[in-house]
Amino acid sequence: MYQPKDSSKSPRFCGVRTFMRLEHIQTTENVDFAVLGVPFDTAASNRTGQRLGPQHIRNFSTLLRPYNPDMEINIFDYCSGVDYGDIDVIPGNIHRTYDNMIEGLTPLLDADVTPVIMGGDHSISLGNLRAFHKKYGPVALVHFDSHGDTWDNYYGEKYMHGTPFRRAVEEGLIDTDHSIQIGMRGPLYGPGDIDDARDLGFEVLPMKEVRKLGFDEVIARIHKRAGDRPVFVSYDIDFVDPAFAPGTGTPEVAGPNSYEALEYVRALDGLNLVGFDLVEVLPTYDHNEITAALASSIMYEMITLTALKKRSALQRANEETVKQS
Amino acid sequence: MYQPKDSSKSPRFCGVRTFMRLEHIQTTENVDFAVLGVPFDTAASNRTGQRLGPQHIRNFSTLLRPYNPDMEINIFDYCSGVDYGDIDVIPGNIHRTYDNMIEGLTPLLDADVTPVIMGGDHSISLGNLRAFHKKYGPVALVHFDSHGDTWDNYYGEKYMHGTPFRRAVEEGLIDTDHSIQIGMRGPLYGPGDIDDARDLGFEVLPMKEVRKLGFDEVIARIHKRAGDRPVFVSYDIDFVDPAFAPGTGTPEVAGPNSYEALEYVRALDGLNLVGFDLVEVLPTYDHNEITAALASSIMYEMITLTALKKRSALQRANEETVKQS
Amino acid sequence: MYQPKDSSKSPRFCGVRTFMRLEHIQTTENVDFAVLGVPFDTAASNRTGQRLGPQHIRNFSTLLRPYNPDMEINIFDYCSGVDYGDIDVIPGNIHRTYDNMIEGLTPLLDADVTPVIMGGDHSISLGNLRAFHKKYGPVALVHFDSHGDTWDNYYGEKYMHGTPFRRAVEEGLIDTDHSIQIGMRGPLYGPGDIDDARDLGFEVLPMKEVRKLGFDEVIARIHKRAGDRPVFVSYDIDFVDPAFAPGTGTPEVAGPNSYEALEYVRALDGLNLVGFDLVEVLPTYDHNEITAALASSIMYEMITLTALKKRSALQRANEETVKQS
Amino acid sequence: MYQPKDSSKSPRFCGVRTFMRLEHIQTTENVDFAVLGVPFDTAASNRTGQRLGPQHIRNFSTLLRPYNPDMEINIFDYCSGVDYGDIDVIPGNIHRTYDNMIEGLTPLLDADVTPVIMGGDHSISLGNLRAFHKKYGPVALVHFDSHGDTWDNYYGEKYMHGTPFRRAVEEGLIDTDHSIQIGMRGPLYGPGDIDDARDLGFEVLPMKEVRKLGFDEVIARIHKRAGDRPVFVSYDIDFVDPAFAPGTGTPEVAGPNSYEALEYVRALDGLNLVGFDLVEVLPTYDHNEITAALASSIMYEMITLTALKKRSALQRANEETVKQS
Amino acid sequence: MYQPKDSSKSPRFCGVRTFMRLEHIQTTENVDFAVLGVPFDTAASNRTGQRLGPQHIRNFSTLLRPYNPDMEINIFDYCSGVDYGDIDVIPGNIHRTYDNMIEGLTPLLDADVTPVIMGGDHSISLGNLRAFHKKYGPVALVHFDSHGDTWDNYYGEKYMHGTPFRRAVEEGLIDTDHSIQIGMRGPLYGPGDIDDARDLGFEVLPMKEVRKLGFDEVIARIHKRAGDRPVFVSYDIDFVDPAFAPGTGTPEVAGPNSYEALEYVRALDGLNLVGFDLVEVLPTYDHNEITAALASSIMYEMITLTALKKRSALQRANEETVKQS
Amino acid sequence: MYQPKDSSKSPRFCGVRTFMRLEHIQTTENVDFAVLGVPFDTAASNRTGQRLGPQHIRNFSTLLRPYNPDMEINIFDYCSGVDYGDIDVIPGNIHRTYDNMIEGLTPLLDADVTPVIMGGDHSISLGNLRAFHKKYGPVALVHFDSHGDTWDNYYGEKYMHGTPFRRAVEEGLIDTDHSIQIGMRGPLYGPGDIDDARDLGFEVLPMKEVRKLGFDEVIARIHKRAGDRPVFVSYDIDFVDPAFAPGTGTPEVAGPNSYEALEYVRALDGLNLVGFDLVEVLPTYDHNEITAALASSIMYEMITLTALKKRSALQRANEETVKQS
Repeated sequence: MYQPKDSSKSPRFCGVRTFMRLEHIQTTENVDFAVLGVPFDTAASNRTGQRLGPQHIRNFSTLLRPYNPDMEINIFDYCSGVDYGDIDVIPGNIHRTYDNMIEGLTPLLDADVTPVIMGGDHSISLGNLRAFHKKYGPVALVHFDSHGDTWDNYYGEKYMHGTPFRRAVEEGLIDTDHSIQIGMRGPLYGPGDIDDARDLGFEVLPMKEVRKLGFDEVIARIHKRAGDRPVFVSYDIDFVDPAFAPGTGTPEVAGPNSYEALEYVRALDGLNLVGFDLVEVLPTYDHNEITAALASSIMYEMITLTALKKRSALQRANEETVKQS
Repeated sequence: MYQPKDSSKSPRFCGVRTFMRLEHIQTTENVDFAVLGVPFDTAASNRTGQRLGPQHIRNFSTLLRPYNPDMEINIFDYCSGVDYGDIDVIPGNIHRTYDNMIEGLTPLLDADVTPVIMGGDHSISLGNLRAFHKKYGPVALVHFDSHGDTWDNYYGEKYMHGTPFRRAVEEGLIDTDHSIQIGMRGPLYGPGDIDDARDLGFEVLPMKEVRKLGFDEVIARIHKRAGDRPVFVSYDIDFVDPAFAPGTGTPEVAGPNSYEALEYVRALDGLNLVGFDLVEVLPTYDHNEITAALASSIMYEMITLTALKKRSALQRANEETVKQS
Repeated sequence: MYQPKDSSKSPRFCGVRTFMRLEHIQTTENVDFAVLGVPFDTAASNRTGQRLGPQHIRNFSTLLRPYNPDMEINIFDYCSGVDYGDIDVIPGNIHRTYDNMIEGLTPLLDADVTPVIMGGDHSISLGNLRAFHKKYGPVALVHFDSHGDTWDNYYGEKYMHGTPFRRAVEEGLIDTDHSIQIGMRGPLYGPGDIDDARDLGFEVLPMKEVRKLGFDEVIARIHKRAGDRPVFVSYDIDFVDPAFAPGTGTPEVAGPNSYEALEYVRALDGLNLVGFDLVEVLPTYDHNEITAALASSIMYEMITLTALKKRSALQRANEETVKQS
Repeated sequence: MYQPKDSSKSPRFCGVRTFMRLEHIQTTENVDFAVLGVPFDTAASNRTGQRLGPQHIRNFSTLLRPYNPDMEINIFDYCSGVDYGDIDVIPGNIHRTYDNMIEGLTPLLDADVTPVIMGGDHSISLGNLRAFHKKYGPVALVHFDSHGDTWDNYYGEKYMHGTPFRRAVEEGLIDTDHSIQIGMRGPLYGPGDIDDARDLGFEVLPMKEVRKLGFDEVIARIHKRAGDRPVFVSYDIDFVDPAFAPGTGTPEVAGPNSYEALEYVRALDGLNLVGFDLVEVLPTYDHNEITAALASSIMYEMITLTALKKRSALQRANEETVKQS
Repeated sequence: MYQPKDSSKSPRFCGVRTFMRLEHIQTTENVDFAVLGVPFDTAASNRTGQRLGPQHIRNFSTLLRPYNPDMEINIFDYCSGVDYGDIDVIPGNIHRTYDNMIEGLTPLLDADVTPVIMGGDHSISLGNLRAFHKKYGPVALVHFDSHGDTWDNYYGEKYMHGTPFRRAVEEGLIDTDHSIQIGMRGPLYGPGDIDDARDLGFEVLPMKEVRKLGFDEVIARIHKRAGDRPVFVSYDIDFVDPAFAPGTGTPEVAGPNSYEALEYVRALDGLNLVGFDLVEVLPTYDHNEITAALASSIMYEMITLTALKKRSALQRANEETVKQS
Repeated sequence: MYQPKDSSKSPRFCGVRTFMRLEHIQTTENVDFAVLGVPFDTAASNRTGQRLGPQHIRNFSTLLRPYNPDMEINIFDYCSGVDYGDIDVIPGNIHRTYDNMIEGLTPLLDADVTPVIMGGDHSISLGNLRAFHKKYGPVALVHFDSHGDTWDNYYGEKYMHGTPFRRAVEEGLIDTDHSIQIGMRGPLYGPGDIDDARDLGFEVLPMKEVRKLGFDEVIARIHKRAGDRPVFVSYDIDFVDPAFAPGTGTPEVAGPNSYEALEYVRALDGLNLVGFDLVEVLPTYDHNEITAALASSIMYEMITLTALKKRSALQRANEETVKQS
């Protein structure tokens, strides 16, 4: 059973920084979730430096404690987790990087460990989806972002941080009928930027519509859309307003605040969640770790969802047993 | 027809930085709007350095794309625009600076080009209003700010960044009956600070009242107040809360967020808008360009308003034609 | 009568920085409130450097003006105030520091001067409460914070910034029946972290409940709880969301914004307020003084409350006189 | 007798920040030197914000201790000193500012107090020289700077931070035959920039020549040039390389390091020093106070020179007495 | 004739930022030198973000004036120069970027314009050398750097910022017999890192040897080595100590200071210089523009060398004429 | 055999950050040196936050490579090394922290592992010396610092970062006859600050004397003083000039540069070195990791010394064998 060091016993600023002070060990034995980084940023079209995202999040995450009062659960009552380290990416070579990602993720997925993945730029989601597809077939995508990332290419380049979900659809990795994008906003090249994503099969809720529908209705739509399919959650930190998450590559103003940023994750409880990524944290544009604070809190809620899923399974199993006896 | 470079063809971080990657050219031929800077900061009473505001905004603005999904318009379907560069200000000499401003703005106004002006401290609005008065007579002022800037003097000095609108009234540049100030807040010297502005003829909606009235009612009052007069919009970035716009000279906490910051501009659609300024961006107090992001987005909405006005005129003209035929 | 320098006469960036440009003098004669610092940070469990908090707040506070438009009062019509300087703390020795605090605060309390105290980490509240207890007996505590600070110990240490209110209860300094904590959020060691505070006698409104109840109901509960007891207000700046107050030691995301941060203070008007502290401002993690801006505004509202209390007393006295005559 | 608080008794981070923890008092009684600020920056031609220089220096200067081991003297064995506060400048109005400076400096000079003045941009030196002229007539100027500041005007403006010494010569404030400029470097408008200063009567040692001559010869020339005239020392922090003093308005690379920066001041011992200014510290471009550290150390050496001068006078007086008896 | 705006007439902080306030125009007519950027950073193995280098340098370079007092020449007495803008790079695709570079540089080289190129990471030098080879055949390389950049590959990748000069040798672009590397230092993978460069044919002067030989001998060796061949100068800003140039990707401590950084360039006068690049400026790690200040000064000296070369040619031509007559 | 990951195979920005990418493992088997942190900062008298020093150094140290070209040795040809993690310190309680240090260091010393210790403030050296004394008896101290740290107390407190070496002498931990302090500078309380250290038995070379003697003589004195005794090296990063090492608590200007900072360590080769500490790195005052770069380079030289000592021992052993045969 792997769990964090107790910060009331050992000061939280002591020791090599791992996510949440979890043990850094590359095993799948007795592990329910694994935090790992993919420090790749070659595919960024504006600012770059997302390669430093994972360690930046780790450095701050020592502040996290095991009990989640909002969801009323102690994660480690139900889960064992590790910091699995980072995938060895190949800067400048996205295809070799994708290969390394698949090689790295496969043993985790094969062992039913839930990966909670830190980017890197958003192009890494294509690597993630390729690995998940091997295990689950086409997954339902729940995608929080200020950009749809379904463009076809930049300057003729097909594999950029604004194109992963078009590529993923083309490769059959996503079950678009059960997939949804939330939060798009900011100036576009044209109305086609959104329409194209709908043509690819996604339900798209731009921020303007999110505000009109309200939080509860948005959540209802996510649940209805995803149904009981295996869900991969992709969360671009630029979904959030830059006042709360300045450390990112293509910030768009007028986004959700930090409370909403967490509530959208919490509200995914009940879905058949099989994996997560949190991308585009760019430390050289963060100040005083406020983006790291939010990113590690979002990941904390993702991990909580994994614990809640395990608790539900246990409860169902118990109820089964009771019924049967 | 002048429009921005296409960032899906040429990376947005390439090239000399102009506003929105527009061509930098000082012409009024075939131009509908012109972005220009007035990097003057001699009149600041607290922090200074607003002279670097225009380039700071330009540096970030390369992220802007031509289609505005909130207003559903591609700006360049209706407008041609340029980065006109900066007025040569005279640091330390406000009067010679005003002269240069008038000399610089007059050809634009004469050619019916809409100026979108970046400060500089708020004292530049007096120069702007002098130039606009030459073209339009007294204009209706719509003024977003956390300060009224109608003080009489500081330390005996009459031309400071807290006095331009009193001077403008004294000079007959403003049609106060159709003018309105929105957002005043923060500690004052006395209740007279607000009352005096009303005595000058302005409608004043301090933040406390804005919160009471609600967004829709505030917008209704603006439209009612301005009527069909030619409107000059003056937007002090300190209208916004410092968490969203830290880079300014006299920040006041407890202001609107970034979403509201844009919505107030968008809601001006329909007014007879003839010019804009966006002032008090102070780069040395910005962090990671979040103020620049918001400032360039506000200016983007101002430019959108110009495009919407042109579209309306075209539609009216078309309807005219249809009716007449 | 002590009041701030007039910034419309003398520029606000001139002179040695005292809080609000008040006179720096250690007297209790003709003084109604005294701002003072306790730059102690030995008891911080995460980031440290709160020792620089008081001067950081002073540096920014020159922007404050005497008239509070939200509460419609000119503070100095009713109060005389000074910057009393800082308590000489003993870094590394909390017990000698507490002794110095009591020695420093006692003359102020004896002279019925209202102290408005700047930390320093939250451990200083225990020193404050000891001094207030000497004057008032057990006080009602109104405590805004993202953490309850009622833990028993850290690594076996009993006097840390997360333990002052448990120690204070144990020492009988607080009248818990009339005390209330507002705003707790973020991951915990376990559900006991909150329950224990309730067992100690506090009413506790974690952020989750605050959002459910709404602002008005929270305020109603505070007033009901405190009744007419002498109230000490302890305000940890990490009560506020880190986007608005990044400069602190243990930030928790998803907190109130800057407007709410002030409104909670303003709404305390009417309580029998006898003293205030504002703690955990950590300048090395602030950026561009936005935390300082908010902290000085919160203190400004605390001072306003002191003026309002004096005005009420005067009015009651006048009404008495009228009735009697 | 005024001397700093003892930081081995009271922590140096406690209390309102004055220069070197000296008492902040505006008296000339029993005072040998007075530190004061002139936070004026209207005349800066490039970056601005020097108005915050004095407080920035004060904030760091608490680290200074009374004994100077390099010069082997305890300053306060021979001197009493105060922090006199700042001159009330008039931002935007250099002429009224000069008037205020003269009014403020005159009582100090009349009482034979040595002023150690913190800028502010370099235009303040003209105000200083006007005040000193009233007392001493034309003074010998020893001027350390990377720019000569003898330009005639900028954009037609005569009173800028690059023109004070030409104005001072024109006004007869400087005894150019005994004046010298050291350290000029960086690109110029033309060779005339240096030649003109020589035509005005100054000896000029540009950095290129300083390196050729070597430190000892430069010092010899300064002493020879100044002779026994009353000397005013004007030290622009941009004399130093920007790696050691980044916080300034017009940095020029390839300057002296921090050790040399101090040695040039120390080597002035023996001159008839009557006053000092240290200008162009610009806090918003400083990082982690390294410019403040150097600036306060330079001022510390200036104060030491004042103490050394007093010691010499005492020794001479004693020798006189011995001889006479 | 293209020359900078006169900053004594128009304030240097006015206008769209071009290098040294030169005109931004893409012409080769009447142009002697052209400053241009190659904002490519895909090949960086450690920190990234060098894509923002060119604009960062431009922003600061407005401080440069036309007369170089160290070399005693007014550049624009002999040269006309422009800011040619940036090459459109393809982030993530080094080969297409090289193609664009050759296409962009060829017209300049064909017109005998001297390019002064701003990186980008050091991989851009391979593109530069390919373009220069087309014009000049193998060039002599004078290379200032803390790393030799002759590694074979990183993680199997052949085109990285640590490999350009090995690739260039393999492609026959460099005349290694006349080429020299200066300044290598810091930990290595093994002694082979230096030896391999010698095996490739380079003369290598690691920093340790530079200190032993002294400046004059190093310069003598450079001149002897390069002889009269056409010389391309490649200057990696990390040649300089990080205190003077923090804004770079792989800083190595214990390097030359800013004065030496310039002197090495100045001392190249007399060589047959045909082109220059200055690479690895990384703005997100610069502070307060000190790296930008140094980088623009180095480029200023490169431009000066171009002017000196033209003056020499003119003088030789004049002498020819005199002799012949 | 433990050695760093190869950064030419795995990018250096991948993975959990340990010192130099060494394995993080708490073993003494097959280990020659162990890097470990003591993140304690309670005893700092000015700025605080040194608790974050160790991780800050680790984050940067990934840039280090195994071969030291200045000393011509591949460290891992002679040594196996690990990142041992941090001692669990007790913030606020120096005595319990010292106990934990001794408990943590003893197994390393017992196993003849050379500790290379990262602070933390300088008070940790007393803990180190206590642990070393248990193994070696009184050690020779070689101490680089701008302060002597032999004060008796601060505000009556005996265990502060300015007192460890006086305490160590009192406890008999140091063999003062063979100990030496180098680099003291900056203002003092009095001449006694240096004289007292000499009275305690230390040889003291203040910076003024260092400059007079020259590097070679200083090194000769160190070697002569230490002789063949077991030497503990204590290196306070504030020994270096703040331009090169801004991230520290009590910076003193006019110190050595980064090249000298390393040369002093390299020149210790030949001494009987048994342990090292590098203290007072304060990340919140570092900028862009330049202090971290220097600190990790200093530690790299300390580790190199350990490898050189092992090589010498091997060579002597070999020579013995040869002689004997």
